[in-house]
Amino acid sequence: MFDWFKRRRDAPGRTLRLRSREEAGDATRVDFEELAPEIDTFLGQAAYLQLGYFETLSELIASTLELAEKESLSRAAGAALTKHQELVALIRERGDDPTAIMLPFREPLDSFRRATHGVRPQETMLSVHITAGMLDDFYFALSASYGETGRRVARILRADDDRQAIVDIITATIASDPEWASLLALWGRRLVGDTLLIARAALRPTRLEASDEKKVEPVFTQLIGGHSRRMEAMGLSA
Amino acid sequence: MFDWFKRRRDAPGRTLRLRSREEAGDATRVDFEELAPEIDTFLGQAAYLQLGYFETLSELIASTLELAEKESLSRAAGAALTKHQELVALIRERGDDPTAIMLPFREPLDSFRRATHGVRPQETMLSVHITAGMLDDFYFALSASYGETGRRVARILRADDDRQAIVDIITATIASDPEWASLLALWGRRLVGDTLLIARAALRPTRLEASDEKKVEPVFTQLIGGHSRRMEAMGLSA
Repeated sequence: MFDWFKRRRDAPGRTLRLRSREEAGDATRVDFEELAPEIDTFLGQAAYLQLGYFETLSELIASTLELAEKESLSRAAGAALTKHQELVALIRERGDDPTAIMLPFREPLDSFRRATHGVRPQETMLSVHITAGMLDDFYFALSASYGETGRRVARILRADDDRQAIVDIITATIASDPEWASLLALWGRRLVGDTLLIARAALRPTRLEASDEKKVEPVFTQLIGGHSRRMEAMGLSA
Repeated sequence: MFDWFKRRRDAPGRTLRLRSREEAGDATRVDFEELAPEIDTFLGQAAYLQLGYFETLSELIASTLELAEKESLSRAAGAALTKHQELVALIRERGDDPTAIMLPFREPLDSFRRATHGVRPQETMLSVHITAGMLDDFYFALSASYGETGRRVARILRADDDRQAIVDIITATIASDPEWASLLALWGRRLVGDTLLIARAALRPTRLEASDEKKVEPVFTQLIGGHSRRMEAMGLSA
């Protein structure tokens, strides 16, 4: 079930196709491509999301007093900014205005970003790791629907995200005080719902039929699988 | 007098040496190398300064509503972050801990950053352009004192700073309202003093003798020359 995310990690050179030949006989095989949004929607959202991660990480850098932590966060911020800039360059190369392409997603994605902003910096760090983890997986999966442009997006999203440093900070936080573990586990669980809503809103049609829900479900199951692995890696129950 | 900054722009492949053969007969020739700080001080300050530019630009991105402006600022922020990360990598490569090397400059450089923070975003943008412009020139000049490591620092500092987008925003601001021109000219003038103090504090000994002041003066005249050109390019009187 969670195979394809696993394969992604194992064989980064391989382009993911949800309907690969091997999966043709699979009962849960997904007609995902027909739900894929127009390419502008896909690119605009993917680019704006990375800008959002960059902004959130930058705010964390500004509010962090620990210089070593600033360093770690700046690597993650730089990685998100690079992805954003590469996606913007791709949009521009296609002859479109990146600002115009991103603008429709500004309001919903800014709300999402505010909703995933925690009271404590550690919560917000977890938010970036969890939401970026799930949504990068989601856009990576979608990218298979867009030919060569999609393959380039996949390469951009697959680049090192430098979020290991955030994972280390969160893991250290949990180790320092056991109460943090339950607080962050709770926070992580809350994030899943919001993040899946963002993923679903990216698909067309905006209001999914029952038959579409069925197609989406296995994908979401896979996203949640990836999420669980990320939580467990930090010692948090998903 | 201001030749060497000009030459730097014209022939970026050439490593600047303040005491080049051509200048050997010059009455204002500078015994700059003996005032150069220890290499750790040099690298730590240069790295921390870039982190500061990145932080200031990130704050500007967060407070900017205009998406196209966010884009412009994010390019400048990314360029500062890249310089910071390359300097940090250089420090690490030399076997030192970047955090430890930067820490002594945190307090004075944070104060400097606060002092150059304007009430209006346009003032702060001008601050980054003006102070980073002067201090990159200054560290570029100093880099000639550190052999191969210095040459690598020079290459890092000489990379595209992507601040043209900031210049465009400031120029547009001035064009939109003539009062801005005098306000920003005033602000720009205020920045020079603070920036030169930071540059002077980087030299050794911390308290300069009268004879040292004489050596430093031509360098500062050159820094001010570069500053004037930057101001004039935006239509501001220096």
